[in-house]
Amino acid sequence: MPQLRLALNQIDSRVGDLAGNAETIVRWTRHSAEQGAHLVAFPEMVLTGYPVEDLALRSTFVEASRAALRSLAARLAEEGFGELPVIVGYLDRSAAAQPRYGQPAGAPQNAGAVLYGGEVALTYAKHHLPNYGVFDEFRYFVPGDTMPVVRVRGVDVALAICEDLWQDGGRVPAARSARAGLLLSINASPYERDKDDTRLELVRKRAQEAGCTTAYLAMTGGQDELVFDGDSIVVDGAGEVVARAPQFAEACVVVDLELPAGVADAPVGVVDDGLRIDRLVLSEEPVPAYAAEPAGGYAERLDDDEEVYSALVVGLRAYVTKNGFRSVLIGLSGGIDSALVAAIACDAVGAENVYGVSMPSKYSSEHSKGDAAELARRTGLNFRTVAIEPMFDAYMGSLGLTGLAEENLQSRLRGTLLMAISNQEGHIVLAPGNKSELAVGYSTLYGDSVGAYGPIKDVYKTSVFQLAEWRNRAAAERGQTPPIPENSISKPPSAELRPGQVDTDSLPDYPVLDAILALYVDRDRGADEIVAAGFDAELVAKTLRMVDRAEYKRRQYPPGTKISPKGFGKDRRLPITNGWREGARTGG
Amino acid sequence: MPQLRLALNQIDSRVGDLAGNAETIVRWTRHSAEQGAHLVAFPEMVLTGYPVEDLALRSTFVEASRAALRSLAARLAEEGFGELPVIVGYLDRSAAAQPRYGQPAGAPQNAGAVLYGGEVALTYAKHHLPNYGVFDEFRYFVPGDTMPVVRVRGVDVALAICEDLWQDGGRVPAARSARAGLLLSINASPYERDKDDTRLELVRKRAQEAGCTTAYLAMTGGQDELVFDGDSIVVDGAGEVVARAPQFAEACVVVDLELPAGVADAPVGVVDDGLRIDRLVLSEEPVPAYAAEPAGGYAERLDDDEEVYSALVVGLRAYVTKNGFRSVLIGLSGGIDSALVAAIACDAVGAENVYGVSMPSKYSSEHSKGDAAELARRTGLNFRTVAIEPMFDAYMGSLGLTGLAEENLQSRLRGTLLMAISNQEGHIVLAPGNKSELAVGYSTLYGDSVGAYGPIKDVYKTSVFQLAEWRNRAAAERGQTPPIPENSISKPPSAELRPGQVDTDSLPDYPVLDAILALYVDRDRGADEIVAAGFDAELVAKTLRMVDRAEYKRRQYPPGTKISPKGFGKDRRLPITNGWREGARTGG
Repeated sequence: MPQLRLALNQIDSRVGDLAGNAETIVRWTRHSAEQGAHLVAFPEMVLTGYPVEDLALRSTFVEASRAALRSLAARLAEEGFGELPVIVGYLDRSAAAQPRYGQPAGAPQNAGAVLYGGEVALTYAKHHLPNYGVFDEFRYFVPGDTMPVVRVRGVDVALAICEDLWQDGGRVPAARSARAGLLLSINASPYERDKDDTRLELVRKRAQEAGCTTAYLAMTGGQDELVFDGDSIVVDGAGEVVARAPQFAEACVVVDLELPAGVADAPVGVVDDGLRIDRLVLSEEPVPAYAAEPAGGYAERLDDDEEVYSALVVGLRAYVTKNGFRSVLIGLSGGIDSALVAAIACDAVGAENVYGVSMPSKYSSEHSKGDAAELARRTGLNFRTVAIEPMFDAYMGSLGLTGLAEENLQSRLRGTLLMAISNQEGHIVLAPGNKSELAVGYSTLYGDSVGAYGPIKDVYKTSVFQLAEWRNRAAAERGQTPPIPENSISKPPSAELRPGQVDTDSLPDYPVLDAILALYVDRDRGADEIVAAGFDAELVAKTLRMVDRAEYKRRQYPPGTKISPKGFGKDRRLPITNGWREGARTGG
Repeated sequence: MPQLRLALNQIDSRVGDLAGNAETIVRWTRHSAEQGAHLVAFPEMVLTGYPVEDLALRSTFVEASRAALRSLAARLAEEGFGELPVIVGYLDRSAAAQPRYGQPAGAPQNAGAVLYGGEVALTYAKHHLPNYGVFDEFRYFVPGDTMPVVRVRGVDVALAICEDLWQDGGRVPAARSARAGLLLSINASPYERDKDDTRLELVRKRAQEAGCTTAYLAMTGGQDELVFDGDSIVVDGAGEVVARAPQFAEACVVVDLELPAGVADAPVGVVDDGLRIDRLVLSEEPVPAYAAEPAGGYAERLDDDEEVYSALVVGLRAYVTKNGFRSVLIGLSGGIDSALVAAIACDAVGAENVYGVSMPSKYSSEHSKGDAAELARRTGLNFRTVAIEPMFDAYMGSLGLTGLAEENLQSRLRGTLLMAISNQEGHIVLAPGNKSELAVGYSTLYGDSVGAYGPIKDVYKTSVFQLAEWRNRAAAERGQTPPIPENSISKPPSAELRPGQVDTDSLPDYPVLDAILALYVDRDRGADEIVAAGFDAELVAKTLRMVDRAEYKRRQYPPGTKISPKGFGKDRRLPITNGWREGARTGG
């Protein structure tokens, strides 16, 4: 059987940065060529970055993407890679689609191209469009209707894009019908907790359906709320794993494959799901026999805590650097949330670029102030203290606030203080809220919710504890100082906005709260089902009421890395004026 | 030809409030029966409210909607309306859809039902699903595949839902194929500027295509960012308008129609677009001949300024009341934006429920303070003054801020002050930003952007002037005091955050800015096209850069009524880390 050395470039790209992304593609193509690759691939929409959202509807951007693709093809040939087929994801438009009401303006497509001989040799577009969870692709794209098959060194390579593998039908059976020797799918598949297991099973299943070796090339890095965890996979037609790339790291995965030769009477015409086979022969002559490298390698999986922590670090780093910032600013209360955020930030951008401010009020305990300072000492971040008492007194003198208004005031004074330092010194402010408190609205709008990014907004409080302990343990194992003070982990959580306040004054214990939230928010279970799962009916009703009422606050919370099957933001979009209360229904 | 008296109930409903909405439906059905109606209709998803967003994906909510529908049918019969067919929009699920990856969980449907004889006699679901602009219906619903036709008093009535009329194909040609005598579409069609003209032309065209009288029943009121302007329309098969309901008001539109009798050999089976005709005979016997009332009336259209102003009032009133608030709080600078917001608020909830605070700094001019007080005097709103100097001095003493940091501080101190009063007294805070300044980021995050609702966030500054002048003129014509001080309209716009500051220090003149924004934001034109339209290239580049960079601030801005073809929010969702700059491309 013909041999083929495949180079899967699992890389990051930046939305909108066509010139920068093209440069990156050239660099990794050069590296792939140096590795002796015969076929080179890049992720879904690598040229434009992913997700482009409404940029897809701007015709100037679509044209800029198309022009950048043509330039890239020419550039690759100029650099000496004209004979090396390179597969690149980009944004295109359908030439065939007639304008009609309800179709995305300009008929944009989530497309792939085969660059060869200085030209755009073949293009195709994603057939299955995801429109759930973080995806809105029916809003932005019209589907592709071809089954592209390129013959490379005698092997028929069928091409697909991401969702084409996730949904039944379409290009997977079509690759079998077309008698392809290799199915190559390019992806920008956002990270979710435990998704790596799902993805592996998926690729194995699809390879068996396609009846040929299947390569799944993933994106890595972060963009806005999304983080891409890499984890590219190559599986043979029997479902056995041939290679697996590392998580959360850029990599060029080189695999030597033996693949069936394309046949002379290869099928043409319309096959499964109405897909029309679109064949292109680039090179018939197989590669002269060569000694294959040992199987492509199987990168070790991270354990669960390290995986989530890595996602948070990669997501934050991408957000900070892609937005043109160098340093971050965090309010340090001495509590575990801001301590974990600081540890993540130090890992993401370096402690020398992390600025922490302790902003004690008269209700701040001595140990809180001490814990914040201790965190700074352990991590080496830049630390200062600014008391909020003078500002607090000025407001109280003018307004005479009481109760919740007085509590929230302290939080808002801190938010204003952080933004003032940010404006003055140019750091990006990080918001410390976790998913548990955001879910139930246990936070102050324009107070502790202030910030451009919320690193742990999709992390339940019980996971906050777990990640803090993991990070300290990992440091100890490496012989480093654990970054998070033991006292920040062990003391009872408190907002310290009134004397003796603790979170459990207002909320259930976190393990109970998080278990209820996981059922209600992440799994859309109803009150009755949650009670049936063993929780107190009154507590369930109270919790669900809090969640239903907190929607407005959540909408105004900054983005952060999504790590859960169902976080907030696009995955939780109840109308704000929501008369229907899951909690109230059974709580009366 | 048989006669039929149709009652179209153009009403408001509240998302999630199943019990309250059902009660409303019973009340308006009673009224319709008292008017002698033979067929009664209510808007799209009236029972659940519209849009339900992610509530559609909660099976408990879907089941609650289905149960509420059954109870409503029984209740109507108990109240004596069992023989009166009532058409109601609600949320259902498809019994036929098999679960599959990528399909909305539980296969929810945007459905309609015919209630008759105490039962749910027939159900159907929207066939064309909109997924653009403010709509995300591919995310939430699976399409219906029937062409429902009910025979009422000998007349075949074909049923449709909203988008079924907007997109080509589907139920309009199917109604003709089914030889319907009346096409009745129930809608929740959000207001856009000038949409009434589009809608009228649409209904006329569709009536001609269907070849029968077509009734378009609209929703009115407001929900979150959407406002529904009413404007129900009945058109005969030749495209002539029979009746038109008022804008922005609840109404029961009663129309006497003469319609062709349903034929004995009425078509069955699958017709256009794969729709299967689903026939139900409720009553064959025509209504005994009666003296028809004169043609149903043609409510006068509002002029353009009054129409937009009405949308803003209705949207704000709905947001405040549906969220359970009674009173609003506004920071009054003496400028035109907060003055217009205050005027809208007084019209929406009554001046006695509007609280204004003047928050002068050392940079506030005497006339600004005077203009704010004058606004209060003219409208009768509740007014107080709280100087921010003590808070400002406290921060400056601790931080020593300069430049932009000092300017933004003042704005944030005001935001914190408003939130403190809101927490203390229970008013909902309104944010005064207009679309021009939001588009270019000329606002302070957590400062003047503070608020639960931004009444004029979708109104360009040039329109702000126009609406203020219209409102004053309308008052004068009614012999009332014009609410907005002449000086607030005539003076040059200024943020007053440093001595002598005016908006034109940072921004183009508003007529130029707004014209560029209308092309760039609302019409997705590129830099070259905008320059070709006659604008200075450097100014265009500078403006587009500002817009591209302001995305993050806009995402954190509170909701407000959408009145433009393309506002912000769902209609402008560029990724935040956007490397592609339309402005930079031609500005270099």
